[in-house]
Amino acid sequence: MFKKLCAEFLGTCWLVLGGCGSAVLASAFPQVGIGLLGVSFAFGLTVLTMAYTVGGISGGHFNPAVSLGLAVAGRVPAASLVSYVIAQVAGAIIAAAVLYVIATGKADFQLGSFAANGYGEHSPGGYSLTAALVTEVVMTFFFLIIILGSTHRRVPAGFAPIAIGLALTLIHLVSIPVTNTSVNPARSTGQALFVGGWALSQLWLFWIAPLFGAAIAGIVWKSVGEEFRPVD
Amino acid sequence: MFKKLCAEFLGTCWLVLGGCGSAVLASAFPQVGIGLLGVSFAFGLTVLTMAYTVGGISGGHFNPAVSLGLAVAGRVPAASLVSYVIAQVAGAIIAAAVLYVIATGKADFQLGSFAANGYGEHSPGGYSLTAALVTEVVMTFFFLIIILGSTHRRVPAGFAPIAIGLALTLIHLVSIPVTNTSVNPARSTGQALFVGGWALSQLWLFWIAPLFGAAIAGIVWKSVGEEFRPVD
Amino acid sequence: MFKKLCAEFLGTCWLVLGGCGSAVLASAFPQVGIGLLGVSFAFGLTVLTMAYTVGGISGGHFNPAVSLGLAVAGRVPAASLVSYVIAQVAGAIIAAAVLYVIATGKADFQLGSFAANGYGEHSPGGYSLTAALVTEVVMTFFFLIIILGSTHRRVPAGFAPIAIGLALTLIHLVSIPVTNTSVNPARSTGQALFVGGWALSQLWLFWIAPLFGAAIAGIVWKSVGEEFRPVD
Amino acid sequence: MFKKLCAEFLGTCWLVLGGCGSAVLASAFPQVGIGLLGVSFAFGLTVLTMAYTVGGISGGHFNPAVSLGLAVAGRVPAASLVSYVIAQVAGAIIAAAVLYVIATGKADFQLGSFAANGYGEHSPGGYSLTAALVTEVVMTFFFLIIILGSTHRRVPAGFAPIAIGLALTLIHLVSIPVTNTSVNPARSTGQALFVGGWALSQLWLFWIAPLFGAAIAGIVWKSVGEEFRPVD
Repeated sequence: MFKKLCAEFLGTCWLVLGGCGSAVLASAFPQVGIGLLGVSFAFGLTVLTMAYTVGGISGGHFNPAVSLGLAVAGRVPAASLVSYVIAQVAGAIIAAAVLYVIATGKADFQLGSFAANGYGEHSPGGYSLTAALVTEVVMTFFFLIIILGSTHRRVPAGFAPIAIGLALTLIHLVSIPVTNTSVNPARSTGQALFVGGWALSQLWLFWIAPLFGAAIAGIVWKSVGEEFRPVD
Repeated sequence: MFKKLCAEFLGTCWLVLGGCGSAVLASAFPQVGIGLLGVSFAFGLTVLTMAYTVGGISGGHFNPAVSLGLAVAGRVPAASLVSYVIAQVAGAIIAAAVLYVIATGKADFQLGSFAANGYGEHSPGGYSLTAALVTEVVMTFFFLIIILGSTHRRVPAGFAPIAIGLALTLIHLVSIPVTNTSVNPARSTGQALFVGGWALSQLWLFWIAPLFGAAIAGIVWKSVGEEFRPVD
Repeated sequence: MFKKLCAEFLGTCWLVLGGCGSAVLASAFPQVGIGLLGVSFAFGLTVLTMAYTVGGISGGHFNPAVSLGLAVAGRVPAASLVSYVIAQVAGAIIAAAVLYVIATGKADFQLGSFAANGYGEHSPGGYSLTAALVTEVVMTFFFLIIILGSTHRRVPAGFAPIAIGLALTLIHLVSIPVTNTSVNPARSTGQALFVGGWALSQLWLFWIAPLFGAAIAGIVWKSVGEEFRPVD
Repeated sequence: MFKKLCAEFLGTCWLVLGGCGSAVLASAFPQVGIGLLGVSFAFGLTVLTMAYTVGGISGGHFNPAVSLGLAVAGRVPAASLVSYVIAQVAGAIIAAAVLYVIATGKADFQLGSFAANGYGEHSPGGYSLTAALVTEVVMTFFFLIIILGSTHRRVPAGFAPIAIGLALTLIHLVSIPVTNTSVNPARSTGQALFVGGWALSQLWLFWIAPLFGAAIAGIVWKSVGEEFRPVD
């Protein structure tokens, strides 16, 4: 179990360092910045790369909502849920700290949103609480459906990290303007701790909505996809 | 059959939510918007991800033109065509509704084209009816050729979703300026219902042209590719 | 052989329609254009998609330089070279014609470079004949090395189209500013016929340089990579 | 061994030609330049393509830090380290020379940073020595973790070049603003030789930091990932 938790720690650390790191350091770089498209690829590639790297050790969740959804669908034992979540949140916090050290190495550094998630006046595009809630629930729902489907025994081995990583890219392509995209409570927590104030007071939504969407996906998939027989 | 229709419903829902969602919410975001390149990736990744997820259940069409082309080529039974199309259109409409709820959560929301397809004065780049017709027929033709070829038994298992998803990305890279890119009547219908007016009156082209291009591809492939023997 | 030539015709048609099509129609679209990055992906994805589709039929060359390089390396019989090249050039010309029909469906259409290749004053970035020559030779050299290496029996089956397609993307990421990137005489010929004048008078370079680079790669690979034994 | 060194020479040559080439020639091209996103993809695709091409010959390192990290983890014999590094640095220098010939074929050519790596006033975004050091160590650490994990026998064969190549893309998406991204002493050396002055005097960091990060990764992976048994 210790090695599994190390894997989840490292993977979530990489997710935040790569995803939030690209947002903080490179998104709005003058003239040649990578924009939301680059940030979307960065988030997706953190999961694609780490799922190949440690997926065989811990399953490669890197996200409390993913762990919950897989548990609800009966894929992983519920008993390991709490320790997984702790490792994931710890990885996110350490990554946010490393990113803070790097980002403050610039003379005219300004914290800004530091890639934290928000709604209402802290939504990048000014979207309401309701829009944020719907977005996070629906996006996490589909994220889990894709995870559950692409790791199913009927899919040829080895392709799941591509499908799952690029699903996260796609989710960011749609929803960064709404909430800065969470679908991952650990990722939201790490950044919120460094921003404080509004980010901490809005953090509840980025735990509730992803966990809820993931749980629904676990239930839906169990009835629609898991037990599918080619001969029905 | 019920599970197959659920799969087509979910997949088409995701196609519209991800593809049209990225166009409506993120394409023209100030400074760092994802542009047509990001929208092209989003559409392609919806199919790539969902084909891995439910391809083994329903075949992963998510598009009436794809279902028709596969039926013409003799890959799927024509009998299931109508129910597949109904599930696909239903998925597209639900997705457009969810997207509408999210998009209107912004104070200064304007419907605009809402990612609907059009020609003439409603073509993003002002392309004529003829250009739109040629584009949709030719693009859907090649889309089906790629689907039929990459899912052929001669190709190693597991790669088809990559080829097909990225083919849709490529098609969007070329043709968004002409028609906003359909090649998928279900996707066009969902958005047109919310835009109404011109979008509904131009909707005929985005049924006729993709279905025609797909049918031709089914016929061509059957004679050129399906029965190929390495020793000719 | 007829089916092989059909496959090369269709594949090269798609390469030009997708690659040059994205350049002509979408590259410089106002505000949200796909830019050279989008065009680079488009070219690469034409090859990635078609290599999965008809690679098992014709080998999936879509390019006279590729056919020559493979023949020099002893992978394909030299006897089929001429008929392959004819099918490829025919596909490129038809595609350029279709693209011309679509592009002229815009009221304020201007032919511009129509994605033709050039050097000196017709280089997109104003690069000299020497720079163009070096670029086309070196880029085609590496393109063929990658094709020969990634299709070698030592590489797990099925990945070559990804490596080869994305190699073409990479080549465009580097060299569009220099020559608009050819590395493919068929692709250059199709566009030059519609532009005429300077494009035809500069066309020689885009036959000579890619063919030369490809032939060198065939010779180098044969001595370095083809006969490699793990135990040396 | 000669063929292995040829493979490393060719691969590193391609890495610099493609990665630094895209940065020098296409990154800031007016209006439609590929930006940092395009450069990030270019670097990653050099490794993805060459790993498929010669990975079966030399292992496909193309980077002294990678060779060191693999040696520390016990994957490759330490005895070949020096000859590998020499081949890699030679490939990088030749590539920088070819790129120099191409780039100077433009009338208004200016050397600029010529894609060399730097910190402090030579950091693209003005990041301090400390930020540069942390960035290069941490990024190389994760790069090696991904290389060691994705090439492990537990991962299905053939996917590692995708994971590793796109990891390099991701690393560039995050860190170009900080150091122009090295994580590869050979790549840094080739460019620094042509820039001279400040680039040579800052070159030490781009040897020390990547090698240190890679060595740590080799040690960490050996204890966490290499000996993992599913039943713990």
